[in-house]
Formats: sequence, structure tokens, C-alpha cells
Amino acid sequence: MSETILIDVQNNIMTITLNRPSVLNAFNEQMLEELLKAYKQADENDEVRVVIVTGSGRAFCSGSDLSGGVETFSSEKSADNYRDTGGKLSLQVYNLKKPVIAAINGTAVGVGITMTLPMDIRIFTKGAKLGFVFGRRGIGPEACSGWFLPKIVGIGKALEWVLTGRMISTEEAHSSGLVNYVVEDALEKALEIAGEIVANTSSVSNAFSRQLLWHMLGTESPANSHLFESKFLHWAGNQADAKEGVAAFIEKRTPTFNMSVNEMPDFIKKS
Amino acid sequence: MSETILIDVQNNIMTITLNRPSVLNAFNEQMLEELLKAYKQADENDEVRVVIVTGSGRAFCSGSDLSGGVETFSSEKSADNYRDTGGKLSLQVYNLKKPVIAAINGTAVGVGITMTLPMDIRIFTKGAKLGFVFGRRGIGPEACSGWFLPKIVGIGKALEWVLTGRMISTEEAHSSGLVNYVVEDALEKALEIAGEIVANTSSVSNAFSRQLLWHMLGTESPANSHLFESKFLHWAGNQADAKEGVAAFIEKRTPTFNMSVNEMPDFIKKS
Amino acid sequence: MSETILIDVQNNIMTITLNRPSVLNAFNEQMLEELLKAYKQADENDEVRVVIVTGSGRAFCSGSDLSGGVETFSSEKSADNYRDTGGKLSLQVYNLKKPVIAAINGTAVGVGITMTLPMDIRIFTKGAKLGFVFGRRGIGPEACSGWFLPKIVGIGKALEWVLTGRMISTEEAHSSGLVNYVVEDALEKALEIAGEIVANTSSVSNAFSRQLLWHMLGTESPANSHLFESKFLHWAGNQADAKEGVAAFIEKRTPTFNMSVNEMPDFIKKS
Repeated sequence: MSETILIDVQNNIMTITLNRPSVLNAFNEQMLEELLKAYKQADENDEVRVVIVTGSGRAFCSGSDLSGGVETFSSEKSADNYRDTGGKLSLQVYNLKKPVIAAINGTAVGVGITMTLPMDIRIFTKGAKLGFVFGRRGIGPEACSGWFLPKIVGIGKALEWVLTGRMISTEEAHSSGLVNYVVEDALEKALEIAGEIVANTSSVSNAFSRQLLWHMLGTESPANSHLFESKFLHWAGNQADAKEGVAAFIEKRTPTFNMSVNEMPDFIKKS
Repeated sequence: MSETILIDVQNNIMTITLNRPSVLNAFNEQMLEELLKAYKQADENDEVRVVIVTGSGRAFCSGSDLSGGVETFSSEKSADNYRDTGGKLSLQVYNLKKPVIAAINGTAVGVGITMTLPMDIRIFTKGAKLGFVFGRRGIGPEACSGWFLPKIVGIGKALEWVLTGRMISTEEAHSSGLVNYVVEDALEKALEIAGEIVANTSSVSNAFSRQLLWHMLGTESPANSHLFESKFLHWAGNQADAKEGVAAFIEKRTPTFNMSVNEMPDFIKKS
Repeated sequence: MSETILIDVQNNIMTITLNRPSVLNAFNEQMLEELLKAYKQADENDEVRVVIVTGSGRAFCSGSDLSGGVETFSSEKSADNYRDTGGKLSLQVYNLKKPVIAAINGTAVGVGITMTLPMDIRIFTKGAKLGFVFGRRGIGPEACSGWFLPKIVGIGKALEWVLTGRMISTEEAHSSGLVNYVVEDALEKALEIAGEIVANTSSVSNAFSRQLLWHMLGTESPANSHLFESKFLHWAGNQADAKEGVAAFIEKRTPTFNMSVNEMPDFIKKS
């Protein structure tokens, strides 16, 4: 049983709720462990086709729990053994086989926003605030945000936000491309999009697409993409989902895709 | 003679028209072969300084021809020998020495839109629709779009579009940066821009610029760009086009550039 | 003493002014050498926490000084020894440990705009014009702009601008993300943002953040970022600035950060 998060699976959607509302869902080691476990479940459970992450109460996540005081960021581990907790979380999301939607229902600061960067779609409740405040705490960007943020909003915005550490308005989050939608209720919109993905698309296609797009970001040339796409298309073209997809298109009906990501050959799991 | 495309060269502009209007210019193997040949001609013919690609009738390209039915995407080739057809096309455009403008005159779906991603400028007729619909057919992104798309619109938009497979409005295509212009008549605007390129710029400069920008996308550091730029500038600075460019600027007149891309040294052809 | 630039240090901000107003601050070899020296000073002087670069008179920088006539871009050096001057400047800014703000007070053309691409924040005086005009001079992009420009505005805009060589309006510069702000007085806004950075953020955090974001742009995977971030956080978490940052947050006051970038361990200097 999880203590810092809630997990709910309905209609092929796993909703994970950060659940420490009395401290604005501040992030700590226990939350990390419970999130890693939840994502692993999401990957293994064929019933889950999309994951949504949201927050309980009025915040999404206020960042690292600072209740440890001035020693919060000091560690007794050696430099060689120390690994940023946010980064462990980001790498697992990066390698996930299911689409992940962030329903950012309120304030998201520090790791509260960087933990959403490896997710696929970010939805924002109007008026929610966010900030990459690391420079104002004397630390630095984490959760692999040094790699992710510029790829979402461009290096120009990313540098300004990180070097000033200022709060960012909802409007700027939208116009910069950091969030896909600004709405009255982020969770409602997330459920709508998740439902659309479940109803219309192949899980196998999605597992491949997110591996492809995320992993090709760091490759040298389109030739890398050509090889990876060719491998997948060669395999997928002979599978039930591709045949159903074409048949449904020709018959002008919604397809019914039944394949599981766990039927996919190993080469698609780039991690 | 081509059967699936039309080729026309006028005023130093090669216009290639996808020409299967009865099936909304659906893409097939023959169209691939004829396009590869046309691009090769464009590169070799000094008369051609800009290439435009457009569609015949009301669509630009409706995607892969699905008239083969449910076996459309299956292949008898071995995995090692199989290569995605869209990817072959994209790699050739990526390596082309002439600027390419997509005049997207109507619907562009699947390979119909991904084939335009390695082009340099995309112009859109108002109201035209597009979609990265692969997940709704049980297949995956192709034409190296896993590599190209996030570099044009950012990874946030790219993932949303590919994972939902939904249709994208003209307005969203514009605000995301996927298309450079939305106009009443894409071909007219393409001809105008192509004419401006022919009238004002050096073919040698353009051949270098598109190799540089496309190829540096996947390099590790600006130092790579510094070396490639230095090599070109060292050579170009002693050539007729640079002397004409500076002279025209000093004399406040339009330059007349006469050099051919085929005079360029090998190191500029990065492919 | 510098002849082509002015250097002023006040309130922890170094302001460098390109100062050849009679030729619209055209760039030449002497300006390169003086800028390289000024940046080096900025890095070594602990009093300097932010750098601003602006222009004297009505232009920011009109590009390379073409008073040498048609031989301007020819060089007597061998290809192996020749290095683009703009590129030398860009690489030094890329590796700087202090944030750099471009206050683009007027026209910025050619190297006048490309020299600002490795800076962190670009501010634009309303009505100022810019252009990547290399193709109209028969040369090619320089100052490592082949690498930088697409990472700021996306490859779609970058290619259009470079291949047409046309002038770009203030509005387009803003909506594309090339500039962060368009204002009446670029220098005034730059001083305001620089003041905010000095007042609220840690120099050590900023030195790390800009190294991280710039250098991770070209890395293969978020795992690279994870390692670099972990190394820094392990070190920084035990330093005075992190303790002050957390204490100030808990006590709801503005932090006072006293650490110098010269106290940072070598592994953070990625260059």
C-alpha cells in the first residue's frame, strides 16, 4: 500500500495522485519509491493503456520537502554513489511504454514541475503557477531537466527561466509550449484525452512512438530514425493491430486494437 | 516519363506535383521511385535553384495508398533488408543541395505530411488538415519523422500529436511552427518565396546553409559547427559569389550570383 | 584599454558596449580581440555576476566590417589554420560561467545577431531589425549559428530565415522565441533582469545551470544530464549557498549568496 500517492485504475487509465496535501504534495524519498513502483505496475499491467499524474488538494507539487532544514540537500553518500532522486524518476518515465499525461492541477515548483518534463502531454489548470527556482535555493536543475526543458520550450526560454528562477505565468507556460492545454480543470481534460487515446489508438503503436520520439532526440541523424522505424514497421506490418487499423479505415469504423505492449520484440525497448 | 508526378522547370524553379488526384495523391512505390529520380535531377541540373513540391487537385497527399488492403504494411523482405519507403525519400531531401519548399495545397496525412518534414519551408493553404495518424492504423511514425518532427515543433507538441493521432487544425499547425505560412494559395506563395531566393541569394551559400543547419542538429557541440563553418568560409571567401555579394552591398544593388553547387568542394557534401 | 568597446562594472553587472557608432558598430578583428578579453575578465572577476552586451548609438551591430571591399572574406591562411572569428567569440560565450544578456538596442545583422545566440537572454528594442543575410553576400552562416539558431527558434524558422536572407520583423523575432522581450529600451530592461538575478540567485547555481543547459543540448540521453546534475548536487548540497537558500526560504526572506564561481570544482567546467 502506498502512503504518499493514490493509485486508481479505471477504463484502462491509471491515475496516480500525489497525496500529501497538508504539505502541498512535497516530494520526498518515500514518494519517489512509491512512484517508481506505480510506474512499474503501469508498464506491466496490460489493462493500463494510459497513465495520468495529478495532485491532491490545491497544489500539484510544491517541490522537494524542505522540512529537513538546511541539511536537506546534503548527502552522506560518496560522489560516485550519489544519484539525484528526481533524475531516477525522470529516467523511468522516459523509458515507459505507456503514454503519461500530467494533469497539473495547481502550483508546480522545482521537482514538482521537472518531474513532468519526461511526460508526454502537460495540462494546466488556469492560474496555476510554476517555477524553476533552483538558483534561488543555491542548488541546480535536477530530474534531468537540463536535458528535457530546452527540448520542450527551446533553449532561449529555458535559460531565462532557470537563470532568473522567477515564477512563470500560466499564459507564458502555454505560449512557450511547456503545457499543451490550459483549462478550468486539468484532470477532467486529461481524462478526456486519455479516453481518446484508449478508444482510437494501438498500445503497441504508442509504446513504439514514445520510445522513438524521446530516443531519437539525442541521435545524430535521421538515418538513425530510419533504421529504428524500419525495424518496427517490418514487424508491426504483419501484426493484428496494423491489419485491424487498415481494415477499420477502409470500412470507415473505429478500430479495436487488442495487442499488448508485452508482445513487442526486445529491439523496441531502447532502454 | 513520370506517371505519378509532374515535373516543370521555369525561372530556375523546379515544381514537382504529386499527381494521382483521383486517390488524393496517395503515396505508393512508383511515386517513391519517381520522386527520388526528380530530386536527383534537381540536384544535378544547374538551372534548378529551388524545388517546390505540391499536390494536384484538392489534396496534397492522403498518405500511403491503402488499396492493397490489410496486407498493405506487411512485407516479404527480411527485417535486415526492409527499409521504410518514406524514410528513403526523407533522407534524400535531407541531403539535397537545393532549398525545397512544400506548398501544401490541401489535406496532408501520414506520409503526406511526414514527407515534407525534411523540406526547408512549409506553406499551407487555409483550411487544409493534417494528421500524424499512425497510431490509429496500428503502425508507427515513418519517413524519419521520429527524428524530424520534434526538431520543428518541440517534443511536447510532437508527442501529443503522434500519441493521439488526432487531426490538427491549420491554426495549430501555424502557431506550433510546423508551417511557416498559412495563405489562400500555397503554391502562389511558394513561387513568390522561391523567386525571392533565386533573385537574391547564392546557390552555393544555400547548398552550404541547408547542409549546415540540418546536419548540425545532431552534433554534440557548437565546436562542430565552428569547424564546418570555418572550412566553408575559408573556401567561399575566395570565390566569385562572395566578391559579388560584397560588391553589390557596397554599390547598393542586387547581386548576380553565377556559381553552381557542382563547383563546391567535396567536404561540403556531408552525406 | 579597449578602443572598439566600452566596459563598465556597476552593481555586480558588467556592461559591454560595442562602440564604433560611426560604422553602426561593425565587427572587426580588433573588436573580436577586445571582446574575448572582456569576457575573460568577466569570468575571473568575482564582482561581476551578470554580463550585458549592448551597442552604442542607433545600431546594435551591422555585421562584419566590409570596408576591406571584395576581399573582406578572403584569407591568406591555409584551410587547416583558418577559423571563423565569430565562432571564436561564440565558443567563449558558450563556456562562460556568468549569465549574459543581449540588449539589442537597434539593427543586428549577420554576425551582429549571430554573436548573441550563445547568450542566455535576448532583449529587443521595438522596431529594431535583424537578418541572417549570409546568402545575400555569397557566404554562409558563422559564429556557430548553424548549431545555435535551430535550438532557439526550431529548425523550420531557422531554415526559412537563412535560405531567404530576408529581414525579420520585431514581432516575428518575438513570436519565434528568438528574443525574450520586446521593449522601448532594451538596456533598461536588461539592467532590470540583471539586477533581479544578482539580488535573488546564487552565482554558483547560475554557473552550473548555464553549463548544464548549453552542454546537455548535444548529449545523447537524459542519463547524461542525470550524471552531471548528480555530481553538482552532491557537491552543492553541502555548500554555504544551498544552506542559505533553504534557510531563506524557511524564514521567508531574500537569500544572501556569497559563493564565487571560482570555488567550484573542476568537473563543472565542462569546456
